Amino acid sequence: MKRLQMFGLLNKDMEALEKELYLSVQGDDHLLTETSLHLLKAGGKRLRPVFVLMGGKFGTYDLGKLKRVAIPLELIHSASLVHDDVIDDADTRRGEPTVKAKWGDKIAMYTGDYIYAKALSIAAELPNPRVHQILSKAMVEMSVGEMEQIRDFFNSGQSVRHYLRRIRRKTALLIAISCQLGALAADAEPKVARQLYNYGYNVGMAFQIRDDLLDLSGTEKQLGKPPGSDMRQGNITLPVIYTMEDERLRASLLSELELIREGLSGVGRAIDMILAGDGISRAEQLASRYIEKALTALDKLPDNRTKGNLRDIAHFVTGRKF
Amino acid sequence: MKRLQMFGLLNKDMEALEKELYLSVQGDDHLLTETSLHLLKAGGKRLRPVFVLMGGKFGTYDLGKLKRVAIPLELIHSASLVHDDVIDDADTRRGEPTVKAKWGDKIAMYTGDYIYAKALSIAAELPNPRVHQILSKAMVEMSVGEMEQIRDFFNSGQSVRHYLRRIRRKTALLIAISCQLGALAADAEPKVARQLYNYGYNVGMAFQIRDDLLDLSGTEKQLGKPPGSDMRQGNITLPVIYTMEDERLRASLLSELELIREGLSGVGRAIDMILAGDGISRAEQLASRYIEKALTALDKLPDNRTKGNLRDIAHFVTGRKF
Repeated sequence: MKRLQMFGLLNKDMEALEKELYLSVQGDDHLLTETSLHLLKAGGKRLRPVFVLMGGKFGTYDLGKLKRVAIPLELIHSASLVHDDVIDDADTRRGEPTVKAKWGDKIAMYTGDYIYAKALSIAAELPNPRVHQILSKAMVEMSVGEMEQIRDFFNSGQSVRHYLRRIRRKTALLIAISCQLGALAADAEPKVARQLYNYGYNVGMAFQIRDDLLDLSGTEKQLGKPPGSDMRQGNITLPVIYTMEDERLRASLLSELELIREGLSGVGRAIDMILAGDGISRAEQLASRYIEKALTALDKLPDNRTKGNLRDIAHFVTGRKF
Repeated sequence: MKRLQMFGLLNKDMEALEKELYLSVQGDDHLLTETSLHLLKAGGKRLRPVFVLMGGKFGTYDLGKLKRVAIPLELIHSASLVHDDVIDDADTRRGEPTVKAKWGDKIAMYTGDYIYAKALSIAAELPNPRVHQILSKAMVEMSVGEMEQIRDFFNSGQSVRHYLRRIRRKTALLIAISCQLGALAADAEPKVARQLYNYGYNVGMAFQIRDDLLDLSGTEKQLGKPPGSDMRQGNITLPVIYTMEDERLRASLLSELELIREGLSGVGRAIDMILAGDGISRAEQLASRYIEKALTALDKLPDNRTKGNLRDIAHFVTGRKF
């Protein structure tokens, strides 16, 4: 996955941030530096830093201040991925072996701890106490979301509401505060920061729903990992829940999931069932509704060029094919 | 291990803190609340909160402010223990099953992440940016120390200097900043906070050296876990390094360590070798030298009742039998 490169104005600042991101995890310990850089250098869209900078455009844009939230947010996201890959026993991410696959569970655990701590030590250079409050609260919610995910593994009885609560904690919240903290670090008006939060929240929900449905409808080449990874790990996503609501498919999908859980079947047949039903298109529709809500939040923001860019991102998320 | 109960004045505040400590990890997620409380309720000396309150006695003592650093410090310590027990494959701690033993590696990992995040969200209620800087830097150092420990597992060629650097990061630093942050949260003079840091650092070093030597010379009942746990996990501590310096014991200890590493031998014979040499007494001497340095730092502090208590703690650490 490549960095977002659609916004001419931000490209230079994003280049600078990318370098600082690599520097941010350098330290006395060579192994920790290596393991931390491993995931960062594998790429990623840098969605959270982009949102921070764009949030900053609604106030007094100062890259020196904005990077103190942009880098921590990308690091917190990365640390959570390193820990997730331990939980999910994942071998590849962004087309590269995971830290867990290359160095083992234990080193991956401390790598995550290290990246989290580095993130906080960079944010701590900002004097604004609200930033720390918002960041640390988001980290609490994220870890609750991760725990919900473990507990819900192979829980085929979960509801759409259940799923939405989980992705809110897991993804949408961090994207929401990326927009908000960018605005706050630039001393934008509180109500602007609030609308940016709403925009980010809704884009984040749409983003995760799309991510989850692409895991079922995409190809290995598009995804950088084999399709159906979520289901293989027992992570029941929205298209699966919707497919369960189809009486013609429910029973056979349930027994297929049981076989997957027991390691007696691959995910191929289950994916075929889901693609045969309307689970994917219903999930796409829900993602689109979140995007509409994001656009409504944008309407309440003062007009500027960034607003147009945020609209483009929202459309990009709806149409993303990777 | 019981809470320290030697300081009449602080007992009431420590009782209040204990209750807040339990409340601090309560949240929407019942499982995370349960796993987090598990270790906290098993006890512990609460050394870090005690040091925070005592540091606070050198300024304007305000429990409301002090608890915003005392609780995070105890939580950071606890989170690191939960993660350590995953790394060390430890079954018992404080006489109770570890989170890892009771719920497995994955839940233990997220429990640690959750407790870290809760710690930071409590500290974030304090407006003082230096507090966040000091806390997050200490967390970075701690994770580096943990990583060094994994890498040094069964590294029988490590030096005393190597060992000291590791325990500095792993233990002494957090105790040092407990004293320092107590003083800072109470607006004590900077030079007082500095001397309290020095005191805490040296007591922390002595404390960890004693802890490590007791793991070899204590009984299961005193320790709350079987003796020799460190060596079983490959954690080479100071008495082992000293014993290696004894030419008469070196070769046989080395081959015994190799057998332990391969799972072909228990730690009994290795412990006997160490007890036969002067490794324990040399480690005790080094601990005493750190205590002397702690007492020298105390001499530079203004006279008050707490100073006497800090002196008592220093002597208590030297003589601790659990």
